[in-house]
Amino acid sequence: MKTLWLWFVAVCFTPYAHAADDEAINIAWIVLASVLVFFMQAGFALLESGMSRAKNAVNVMMKNYMDSCVGGIVFWLVGFGLMFGSNLTGWFGMSHFGLHEGEPWDYTFLLFQMMFAVTAATIASGAMAERTRYSAYLIGAVLISGVIYPIFGSWVWSGVYGGQGWLAKMGFVDFAGSTVVHSVGAWCALAGILVLGPRLGRFGSDGEARMIPGHNLGMVALGGFILWFGWFGFNAGSNLEVSTSLGLIALNTHLAAVSGAIGALLAQRSTASPILLTTTVNGSLGGLVGITAGCATMAPGFAALSGLLAGFVVVFGMRLLDRLRIDDVVGAVSVHGFAGIWGTLAAGLFYQGDLFNWSRVAIQALGAASAFLWAFPMALLMYLLLAKTIGLRVTPQQEQRGLDFAEHAEVGYPEFNLAQTFDSEQWSRRG
Amino acid sequence: MKTLWLWFVAVCFTPYAHAADDEAINIAWIVLASVLVFFMQAGFALLESGMSRAKNAVNVMMKNYMDSCVGGIVFWLVGFGLMFGSNLTGWFGMSHFGLHEGEPWDYTFLLFQMMFAVTAATIASGAMAERTRYSAYLIGAVLISGVIYPIFGSWVWSGVYGGQGWLAKMGFVDFAGSTVVHSVGAWCALAGILVLGPRLGRFGSDGEARMIPGHNLGMVALGGFILWFGWFGFNAGSNLEVSTSLGLIALNTHLAAVSGAIGALLAQRSTASPILLTTTVNGSLGGLVGITAGCATMAPGFAALSGLLAGFVVVFGMRLLDRLRIDDVVGAVSVHGFAGIWGTLAAGLFYQGDLFNWSRVAIQALGAASAFLWAFPMALLMYLLLAKTIGLRVTPQQEQRGLDFAEHAEVGYPEFNLAQTFDSEQWSRRG
Amino acid sequence: MKTLWLWFVAVCFTPYAHAADDEAINIAWIVLASVLVFFMQAGFALLESGMSRAKNAVNVMMKNYMDSCVGGIVFWLVGFGLMFGSNLTGWFGMSHFGLHEGEPWDYTFLLFQMMFAVTAATIASGAMAERTRYSAYLIGAVLISGVIYPIFGSWVWSGVYGGQGWLAKMGFVDFAGSTVVHSVGAWCALAGILVLGPRLGRFGSDGEARMIPGHNLGMVALGGFILWFGWFGFNAGSNLEVSTSLGLIALNTHLAAVSGAIGALLAQRSTASPILLTTTVNGSLGGLVGITAGCATMAPGFAALSGLLAGFVVVFGMRLLDRLRIDDVVGAVSVHGFAGIWGTLAAGLFYQGDLFNWSRVAIQALGAASAFLWAFPMALLMYLLLAKTIGLRVTPQQEQRGLDFAEHAEVGYPEFNLAQTFDSEQWSRRG
Repeated sequence: MKTLWLWFVAVCFTPYAHAADDEAINIAWIVLASVLVFFMQAGFALLESGMSRAKNAVNVMMKNYMDSCVGGIVFWLVGFGLMFGSNLTGWFGMSHFGLHEGEPWDYTFLLFQMMFAVTAATIASGAMAERTRYSAYLIGAVLISGVIYPIFGSWVWSGVYGGQGWLAKMGFVDFAGSTVVHSVGAWCALAGILVLGPRLGRFGSDGEARMIPGHNLGMVALGGFILWFGWFGFNAGSNLEVSTSLGLIALNTHLAAVSGAIGALLAQRSTASPILLTTTVNGSLGGLVGITAGCATMAPGFAALSGLLAGFVVVFGMRLLDRLRIDDVVGAVSVHGFAGIWGTLAAGLFYQGDLFNWSRVAIQALGAASAFLWAFPMALLMYLLLAKTIGLRVTPQQEQRGLDFAEHAEVGYPEFNLAQTFDSEQWSRRG
Repeated sequence: MKTLWLWFVAVCFTPYAHAADDEAINIAWIVLASVLVFFMQAGFALLESGMSRAKNAVNVMMKNYMDSCVGGIVFWLVGFGLMFGSNLTGWFGMSHFGLHEGEPWDYTFLLFQMMFAVTAATIASGAMAERTRYSAYLIGAVLISGVIYPIFGSWVWSGVYGGQGWLAKMGFVDFAGSTVVHSVGAWCALAGILVLGPRLGRFGSDGEARMIPGHNLGMVALGGFILWFGWFGFNAGSNLEVSTSLGLIALNTHLAAVSGAIGALLAQRSTASPILLTTTVNGSLGGLVGITAGCATMAPGFAALSGLLAGFVVVFGMRLLDRLRIDDVVGAVSVHGFAGIWGTLAAGLFYQGDLFNWSRVAIQALGAASAFLWAFPMALLMYLLLAKTIGLRVTPQQEQRGLDFAEHAEVGYPEFNLAQTFDSEQWSRRG
Repeated sequence: MKTLWLWFVAVCFTPYAHAADDEAINIAWIVLASVLVFFMQAGFALLESGMSRAKNAVNVMMKNYMDSCVGGIVFWLVGFGLMFGSNLTGWFGMSHFGLHEGEPWDYTFLLFQMMFAVTAATIASGAMAERTRYSAYLIGAVLISGVIYPIFGSWVWSGVYGGQGWLAKMGFVDFAGSTVVHSVGAWCALAGILVLGPRLGRFGSDGEARMIPGHNLGMVALGGFILWFGWFGFNAGSNLEVSTSLGLIALNTHLAAVSGAIGALLAQRSTASPILLTTTVNGSLGGLVGITAGCATMAPGFAALSGLLAGFVVVFGMRLLDRLRIDDVVGAVSVHGFAGIWGTLAAGLFYQGDLFNWSRVAIQALGAASAFLWAFPMALLMYLLLAKTIGLRVTPQQEQRGLDFAEHAEVGYPEFNLAQTFDSEQWSRRG
């Protein structure tokens, strides 16, 4: 009998040993998801650079490369503590700054969240492309990933190290960040482009919008593919563990993306406007933004519907901005902001087992609104201050010559003969 | 003793709890594999665009981007049910159309299979590049991923939801789809290019083949790398679970790819023809196609041999098509079709523990033949109907001007000075 | 009671069954890591091609594509046995050549190590770009991945199949290969560029260094992103199992990379030189090399510090080579060699729980020194022999015309009008 007990104890310890294994497996999963989310930076860089003119190719790439870096460091030192640190008030966290020693999970979670923070920050780079001073842009990226994004994030996602955000307490659902990441980034971008004003010649004197085509559409498509690829890590990683729900999350993500592209295609066709590659790629990205909040709590059919409608939102959102004479180089405000609102509402509307519960939808609307009310004025203030002090916009001469020449010491394609780097007047005749 | 029993029950439940974990881990694996297979679309897009002329860059990208989308939706609504639904006759499935509610595994499996279906469909886009109408191409892609591919697939891979395909019953081995995915896609492509005819000036009046070089070989190499990268998900994901056989599968995949490139190199050198980057990349892809059927049931040495011979098959297959005046822009018929036949036979010849069993090889040959006998006439009929109705080929004027200008509202490289988008006569003097 | 025992036996077998599961999970992890490391080849290809002139674009791509292939095959046949085979003397292994039958783990481990071997070999391709004969380069790559790299590797990493390397016995720490992979590759590259001499016109007659800009900086940035992405597989895969330490490893990897870019930026600014995209990307890669040895045994703060200093090392290392009139096209010697030494020392200095133990640092220095003393003279001999026999450098005419024209039958961008492929004199006036 004694032997029996000894065996017994051995067996009973097995599940404990196994619990450790599970932690290891979850850590491996989040590391992989972090790697996928990291790669989205490359997608943003390609998409934004391809949609800009060749004279700004290096500048756009450098902005994306460096906001990964400085934004990452600042989030490690400051943002992570504000967002996930012990959150007693429900409005911001106050621990775990500059994490240097911790448990294995702490390191993993920090890594994953670093990737999210720079995603939020990098959204502005595309909207504000081709006319923003490099140094001012980087200061903005630091403040977004270090302060604006994490404080809003603490309202929804804090709790790991104690406390809970006020929006989370109300039952606000944003699984992977339609609002927390994408809308916050987009409202910062909107503030930035309002302070900057449109690129030279983007709107005619009669207010007519002129298209300024990007220099490399292959890069745009590749950027779209890479963002889509990385988004699986973004959404499925937000599950924070290996569980059987990963399949639904990933399927919904994919269905929304394909439907978003189809939605954008239908929206373009329904208005008899030409089907553009750039707009179609934006449609799929809008579909992805539109499922990010609800990917874990929606049946596949509703995911496809959310994506389809997000595609329409993106197309009509871009036209709305054009009509308002707001110049968003890559359509980031529409893709991440407008589709982000829609995705946040859709997560409420199509909540599995609780469809069309309007009080739930109201809370979703409140969350989406508070993101705007926090991020937009804060970013507006920040960019106005930058504009008044070190200057946010380059001179017209620098803009015409291109930021690569004016702000960097390299050009993107030194050996290729380019059509003279055109000012907008030329294009108004063509576009 | 009672306590003992209580403990005992607790312990006995541990393995059950653990069984759930295993399902979660398998789901995570298939999600990752799906993500890798998805990324192959980017590889196809880059490879095909790079091998085409700059005037068609947007068109090729859009075809690849959109067949992912419409093909994916149609496979979800129709194809998945035909392929994996309850298959009572052995010839097609009839359940699980438009899956909206299911078990976690259903969602995961659907996602993985969506990626496979669009891979089959997208193979045609490269072969048929530079002369196919965009709308007709997309209708073709819908029918391939929605009907032609899934019906053949049901003969080999159905069974998950009851029933079994007639080829599977005979013992046909096609682990990840040398025949099911690649050859089926290639025979559709072959039908398409026969209906279309060659590009203007691709063959001289004396029948001599003229090379039309692609516009960006860096994109071709990157596309090759991405396809290779994604293929690990294609083959190792087809294991459908995390098991110790993943190592052999992935090693065989890699060995066949490196050997395929070396085979193509030797084949080019043995005929004293110049070593082309495009052909070498195609050799590695041929090696990958050539191991796809047998990657789980072959020793590494035979995997290397399969790949090496696949490299030869690709090179001589491309020459054969040239001699027959069949214009395959990217070599897809040779890479996916001819190397697919070889890979299917190799999976029989080099079956581990049962080498050179000729009755096994005969079944493999039967499977490869039935793929051709099903997919080629079906696709031929489809493309002929499209040609008679909405039209499959653009006009010569549109072809010379480029599909980006003729069918889209964007060009790939608006700022770059291109050599006048050349018609073939010019190139015949040079190539 | 008998029933009880029967149950009991069943339960007791559960952990064993589970042990098999753990092996499967570890195999899945290493397969994924191998896939990520494989993708680094694409990163190297893009980075090196982008930093070269358009006239050599195909050549650089082909070197990277083919050294993956021939290097992989040779490592399978020869290198793996030399590196990991039973190592009785401590100086090289002697079993497991051309592995054809083995356990699941053997296949997996071989796959992972094949990817590492070609990483070491491919480092030379960038440094030696734009002037090296294609055939001679490939023979060099075969000898590096088949002999020079694996023999040094056996001193540090052998033991899986018996025996232990002499450096490992002394306690030398190189978790993922700052020295074993990166420095060894860099010393081979250094030997190559010393034998080759600088590109035509890279240094003026007065010794002044002239910058020769790369032809596509977007490719450089994308290459940097892909290398960074793949590096997570490089470092976290080197754990060789799924364990809770993966989080720290991946976090350290990322922190070092972002700090490396910031270090390079500060180094450039501190010397009032223009901030270059190419140098900044190299800074992040230097940070990655600088954490590769110590990523598993360092607290995050020290990882950031290691990366930051690696960024400085890269910048000043590149200047040192310029001053010595050594022409390294991509900065590989500085990134992989100098930052590799620093990373190896840092792994000793910042060893967790044993900071600044100078006897540990001395062993690290010994390991770094022996890598140089082994790889540099061996590679020097190899390249000198190649130069004397088949010739290592193309003729000046071929170099001016470009290797794509001279050694291949394709050009990278046949339709784009390029500024006349410039010789260096032109650039000296501009750069």
